[in-house]
Amino acid sequence: MENISDDIVLDILIEGGTLLTMSDGMGVIDNPMVGIKDGRIAFAVQKNDDGDARTYTAKKVLNASGSVIMPGLINTHTHLPMVCFRGLADDLPLMDWLNNHIFPAEARFVNRDMVYAGSMLAIAEMILSGTTTFCDAYFYESSVARAAVDSCMRAVVSQGFIDLPHQNDPVKIVDIAENFIDKWQDKNPLIIPSLACHSPYTCSTKTLACIKDIARKKNILYNIHVSETKEEVAIIKERFGKNPVPYLRDIDILDDLTLAVHAVWLDDDEIAMLRENNVKVSHNPESNMKLAAGCAHVPRMIKKGITVGLGTDGCASNNDLDMFREMGSAAKLHKVIQLNPTLMDAKTVLRMATIAGAKALGIDDQTGSIEAGKYADIIIVDMKKPHLTPLYNHYSQLVYAASGSDVDTSIIGGNIVMHERKLIHVDLPSIMQEVRIIAKAIAGNSFSGGY
Amino acid sequence: MENISDDIVLDILIEGGTLLTMSDGMGVIDNPMVGIKDGRIAFAVQKNDDGDARTYTAKKVLNASGSVIMPGLINTHTHLPMVCFRGLADDLPLMDWLNNHIFPAEARFVNRDMVYAGSMLAIAEMILSGTTTFCDAYFYESSVARAAVDSCMRAVVSQGFIDLPHQNDPVKIVDIAENFIDKWQDKNPLIIPSLACHSPYTCSTKTLACIKDIARKKNILYNIHVSETKEEVAIIKERFGKNPVPYLRDIDILDDLTLAVHAVWLDDDEIAMLRENNVKVSHNPESNMKLAAGCAHVPRMIKKGITVGLGTDGCASNNDLDMFREMGSAAKLHKVIQLNPTLMDAKTVLRMATIAGAKALGIDDQTGSIEAGKYADIIIVDMKKPHLTPLYNHYSQLVYAASGSDVDTSIIGGNIVMHERKLIHVDLPSIMQEVRIIAKAIAGNSFSGGY
Repeated sequence: MENISDDIVLDILIEGGTLLTMSDGMGVIDNPMVGIKDGRIAFAVQKNDDGDARTYTAKKVLNASGSVIMPGLINTHTHLPMVCFRGLADDLPLMDWLNNHIFPAEARFVNRDMVYAGSMLAIAEMILSGTTTFCDAYFYESSVARAAVDSCMRAVVSQGFIDLPHQNDPVKIVDIAENFIDKWQDKNPLIIPSLACHSPYTCSTKTLACIKDIARKKNILYNIHVSETKEEVAIIKERFGKNPVPYLRDIDILDDLTLAVHAVWLDDDEIAMLRENNVKVSHNPESNMKLAAGCAHVPRMIKKGITVGLGTDGCASNNDLDMFREMGSAAKLHKVIQLNPTLMDAKTVLRMATIAGAKALGIDDQTGSIEAGKYADIIIVDMKKPHLTPLYNHYSQLVYAASGSDVDTSIIGGNIVMHERKLIHVDLPSIMQEVRIIAKAIAGNSFSGGY
Repeated sequence: MENISDDIVLDILIEGGTLLTMSDGMGVIDNPMVGIKDGRIAFAVQKNDDGDARTYTAKKVLNASGSVIMPGLINTHTHLPMVCFRGLADDLPLMDWLNNHIFPAEARFVNRDMVYAGSMLAIAEMILSGTTTFCDAYFYESSVARAAVDSCMRAVVSQGFIDLPHQNDPVKIVDIAENFIDKWQDKNPLIIPSLACHSPYTCSTKTLACIKDIARKKNILYNIHVSETKEEVAIIKERFGKNPVPYLRDIDILDDLTLAVHAVWLDDDEIAMLRENNVKVSHNPESNMKLAAGCAHVPRMIKKGITVGLGTDGCASNNDLDMFREMGSAAKLHKVIQLNPTLMDAKTVLRMATIAGAKALGIDDQTGSIEAGKYADIIIVDMKKPHLTPLYNHYSQLVYAASGSDVDTSIIGGNIVMHERKLIHVDLPSIMQEVRIIAKAIAGNSFSGGY
């Protein structure tokens, strides 16, 4: 039982419905009370029949009857500004998509303003579909951080590095990385800075190691795409005579603050190597499906004890940021690939999208479950819908039948950011209009995938 | 150009936005006018700049600016009453799921009232997610038909047969089948009766052939689950010394009014055999994924010229009836299975869910595309949403990013059944309550998949 005193004045009290704590110890609580104070969870307990709630004062009371109260979802990998390329080029061969559509569009249209506008739109979509923390990796990442601050969203913002001709000056790389971290570390409770190297095949050994050194010195997360496609594994094998994971281990990249994104084409030795080094994995099933990258051995990784979070990837390869849809795909994909319907049960998938995601990002002491002391990152999902009726099992209903649009209320750090599906801190019409103007320029300058 | 006279008085005129006709000849029409009269499409044309609309009178005008106007979706395979078992038992081995959960629940709880209540709830969910025609197969199918009539939904209702001990009396089978057809054939434009045999492994040769004879005599559709799992293929091979498709051909089941559902484990010869006999296929990717049945060779079937429609299957194996989500899964699954991102492009998938679905059910002369003379089965999808912004390609946006909850208005046979997301002919709260009461009894009498 939490420490509840009589004279507490809560900022928010949520009552009723069913609480999925996603905490190992606490499980599911029917008819709960969740108290929020100073941005954090004060208590999460079952409501006594004698009307315990009346002994607390709350500035705001939210009635969650017929709803699920649960931790907000954690999207462990995305590239928010790519929302501007949503649907620009689909159903194409991977290299055609990348070299003739995405890279040219990025080279021409990515700038601070585009990154900010795209991030604002993406954050709006994420809040509306129940995400309360995202981990982004892109360029001009300070603009992503500013969008998160302006929309009251929690964000792990990863300044990205790739060895393009103008960017492989080691001195400059160190400057950019250190300045970015100094600018954001411990400045705003919503923003956790991080660094990202695009991949072993697009970054030199020097760049990979240099960025990891800085991340280690600053004690922050290091993101890297690893073995997304068969082709890139072959490239690394040819260049270095070994697979990507041993290559990364040999250059001292792997540790408990390394997040390997995708991790599709790993052999058993590589999975063991990730586990030994306590590396975390971000699984992006819909992107891997749509781009035909392949299917990561997630059930095996989880069995071996690797922490696996869920991510949507960017909107050019998904094409949405709805973590509920992503959960449905994660639950179903592995079953059909392995022809085993018991893999990736609903509770495991919901853990991936909440507490395991927080662990993957190294922030599970702060968020990812409903426990006293953690940030109040909470969503209320309305289960009184025809497609969520009847209701036998909350985990199953959320993973297999719910959509992002069933989220009624989102709270981040004790701040209500959406209520009754209305965004509180985002001016949606003007953000959508800004992105439409950017998209008009993009469409006029590239080959959109017409039919 | 359609035949438009000046003195026409329309029931409904839809103006603005973008029209996806899903008709081969007409394609996409920007800024269209769609006129509806006497339940049918009177015309679908581009609006002239000089304000052609003013020369027609319409009792009701719907403004579709910023929206897509398109044919309602066609769900070619479902078992509506199983909505009562949604989430009852998930993530279990197939035979455990079927024998210890679904079959016992069906034996105990399926009756006329349950079938009607479940169908009403399922129809509500379908209308709210853009489906305007479904093909159902279950028991007490007249109750499904009545639910469709009462909710103004178009339905191919298939009385189902399976050789359970009390049901394999050939005389009784013939009576049930013929009475069912006589009761519904040509009685109500919304209802198209049909017959279904559960599968080659659960029905005797006699039953399969007898039901097909009746279907042929009455010129109606014959539904049958074919080769959903590897195991049932092995059973048929052991019993008859051949695969299911040649077995069905040899007993004269295959023709252009046969719908093979699932069709997962077919070899090349069987695919050729379906094509030769003009058999249609219903593809249910999410059910096949969740139950780990396997992945049908749909791209190959389409390449060979087989008509393939899309279906959700019943809610016990999906667990929703949202054809938008089903489209997303259909588009992505085959790409990752074949490691080819060009398979199942968005337009192909949208065809599967509309005109190809109508062809699969033998009703493409009446519905499945927006063409003058067809029933006005139309949905209006609101594209002014953050997750549908920006908009480069309508097909891609609908398949990869839209959800059922983006459908604003649904029209079936010229009858507005949903507007601004409000159902017109269904009393949703009382239907949901009825199903909750049924579910309470089911939960009290079975092992629900608890965690």
